[in-house]
Amino acid sequence: MTANRIYNFNPGPAALPLPVLEEIQQDFLDFSGSGMSITEISHRSRQFDNVINDAVARTRRLLGLDDQFRVLFLQGGASMQFAMIPMNFLVQNKFADYVDTGTWSSKAIKEAEIQGKAIKVVASSADKNYSYIPQDIKFNAGAVFAHLTSNNTIKGTGWAELPETNGVPIICDMSSDIMSKPIDSQKFGLIYAGAQKNMGPAGVCLVVIRQDMLDLVPDSLPTMLRYDTYAAKNSLYNTPPCFAIYTLGLVLKWLEETVGGLDKMAAINQKKAALIYDLIDAGGFYRAAAEPDSRSLMNITFRLPNEELEQQFIQQALQNGLGGLKGHRSVGGCRASLYNAVSMEAVESLADFMKTFETENG
Amino acid sequence: MTANRIYNFNPGPAALPLPVLEEIQQDFLDFSGSGMSITEISHRSRQFDNVINDAVARTRRLLGLDDQFRVLFLQGGASMQFAMIPMNFLVQNKFADYVDTGTWSSKAIKEAEIQGKAIKVVASSADKNYSYIPQDIKFNAGAVFAHLTSNNTIKGTGWAELPETNGVPIICDMSSDIMSKPIDSQKFGLIYAGAQKNMGPAGVCLVVIRQDMLDLVPDSLPTMLRYDTYAAKNSLYNTPPCFAIYTLGLVLKWLEETVGGLDKMAAINQKKAALIYDLIDAGGFYRAAAEPDSRSLMNITFRLPNEELEQQFIQQALQNGLGGLKGHRSVGGCRASLYNAVSMEAVESLADFMKTFETENG
Repeated sequence: MTANRIYNFNPGPAALPLPVLEEIQQDFLDFSGSGMSITEISHRSRQFDNVINDAVARTRRLLGLDDQFRVLFLQGGASMQFAMIPMNFLVQNKFADYVDTGTWSSKAIKEAEIQGKAIKVVASSADKNYSYIPQDIKFNAGAVFAHLTSNNTIKGTGWAELPETNGVPIICDMSSDIMSKPIDSQKFGLIYAGAQKNMGPAGVCLVVIRQDMLDLVPDSLPTMLRYDTYAAKNSLYNTPPCFAIYTLGLVLKWLEETVGGLDKMAAINQKKAALIYDLIDAGGFYRAAAEPDSRSLMNITFRLPNEELEQQFIQQALQNGLGGLKGHRSVGGCRASLYNAVSMEAVESLADFMKTFETENG
Repeated sequence: MTANRIYNFNPGPAALPLPVLEEIQQDFLDFSGSGMSITEISHRSRQFDNVINDAVARTRRLLGLDDQFRVLFLQGGASMQFAMIPMNFLVQNKFADYVDTGTWSSKAIKEAEIQGKAIKVVASSADKNYSYIPQDIKFNAGAVFAHLTSNNTIKGTGWAELPETNGVPIICDMSSDIMSKPIDSQKFGLIYAGAQKNMGPAGVCLVVIRQDMLDLVPDSLPTMLRYDTYAAKNSLYNTPPCFAIYTLGLVLKWLEETVGGLDKMAAINQKKAALIYDLIDAGGFYRAAAEPDSRSLMNITFRLPNEELEQQFIQQALQNGLGGLKGHRSVGGCRASLYNAVSMEAVESLADFMKTFETENG
């Protein structure tokens, strides 16, 4: 079975490691000797218990989570988390701090406001079209949590280092850079990430929650909107998105056993991003959208001299087997997403194409 | 690529049509000439637009839905619908009727009660352990909706015909018999069904909603918990569960183009169920759990003379390539789920095994 594959720079859903896709394909009609597809086995079976427990164990090891953390799999993506977080943690006169660094931060803020929850936007980079990450933020010691977006997929910015929060636990949307580098888990009350950028297919959202955060959940919430429901049942209160969890587990296995862990992944990701940023900075043809100290290593947003050239760039790239380079529809321009599964070979190929395109059109 | 496949009588996740699984496997590394896996393509791409629009169109044709209905794909399964339905439709002094026919109905009722919504349980078969479907129910003309569970997966009962509801639109959980037979869509305000029994893998929930029901949705709800969010954006407000929707679409294509539609599917399903029920009724060895006029055509629940024999039955069946015959952990006994994708050949093989087992142990 052969297949024509392109280099995939999609922002999400995004590239997955080819060996993972090949393993899924190979086992698709008979998973683990069950005589059934992974899409057909019971979520209450021994086989699926192994799948979910393996995904949890790998998440724990990769993120360095001790016993105070629980690893959960939910549905509805990060967008559902925007609603669940204030619902679960902001009751009575409790309030939280939010930092606004772009489209997804703004949506998280909006979902708290719709519910009439008390939040304080303690910093924002809206004044310069979200092209930078705010510094020297004063967080409120009385806040239940401080909400951050670690990497801004659309604007192409990221926190080089997360801020000091005055002892307040961070709740972080890591959808577009989770598993791209090691983290210091002790800073967090909750981490969430839609899988479809750096961990798997769309349809599952990883939630890492510090045990004591579960004590805040009010009794009045519906069962499926309470974090403690998922914590009590190992994410098996109802039928979970089995295929997405299975694939996520295989991606984490690849990350541990083939790549060699998050330190090694981070070094590769830095090399990949440097290759493109250096090329952009070297000439005057391409222009990076984000300020130098706030640049994302996952999503490189850049402009060409005019929109006509940008369209040509995207089209010609696709003809050369390089896909997904169009910027988000809300900001235009170009964007190369260099998630974990995007290989150095793919990035080198992109760099070569960018040089050629500059020579021909610069 | 060969695979050892068993006959799969799982209650859900459940058997999928083998030609569908083979097509997924074949195209897994390069979907529709994109050079990417279906798990890697953008949900904003032309290719995925085709996928979701095809799944919607097939749902419309198969269920006979006119323009007043919208077809949506959500996450969180039927369990999330239990919470969303009262949240979206029961505000101020509005109330709804619920019929309690088993575990899932009871959970739907509980989720309305947790939210303090006004509901009236107008009928229940709890008095006889949910072994029958209540008849001659008096629905309240002032109710916003009447909630029913068309097929009770755990107890093995189903409505032979849905009741007259006094003009009140039915909201129906069809998770375990959707697409098993034609329906009269005009009776419904909303239909919902987790895909993992009769339509696809776990991870997507089909919602069919009558347009005017959207007018009831209150402003105070978070974006992801409002039906109008999904209706306004063709289920693409955020990243949907792409792989699950794709697979669901292929199952519906198989249903239309290979089986020949819901009339033909219903005839096959009746034959399949009759084969097992007739065998059960013929002797005194097996005993059906549901009353004769309330029997499910999808989930046949039955007992053997004692629990030891039931365990032997389940084990020997698996050794003979017949899987998933264990009853739900809350009721025990045996259960054969005969969803659309379970072939006549599989059911004949089960019948043969049941006869042999009876002869050897009766």
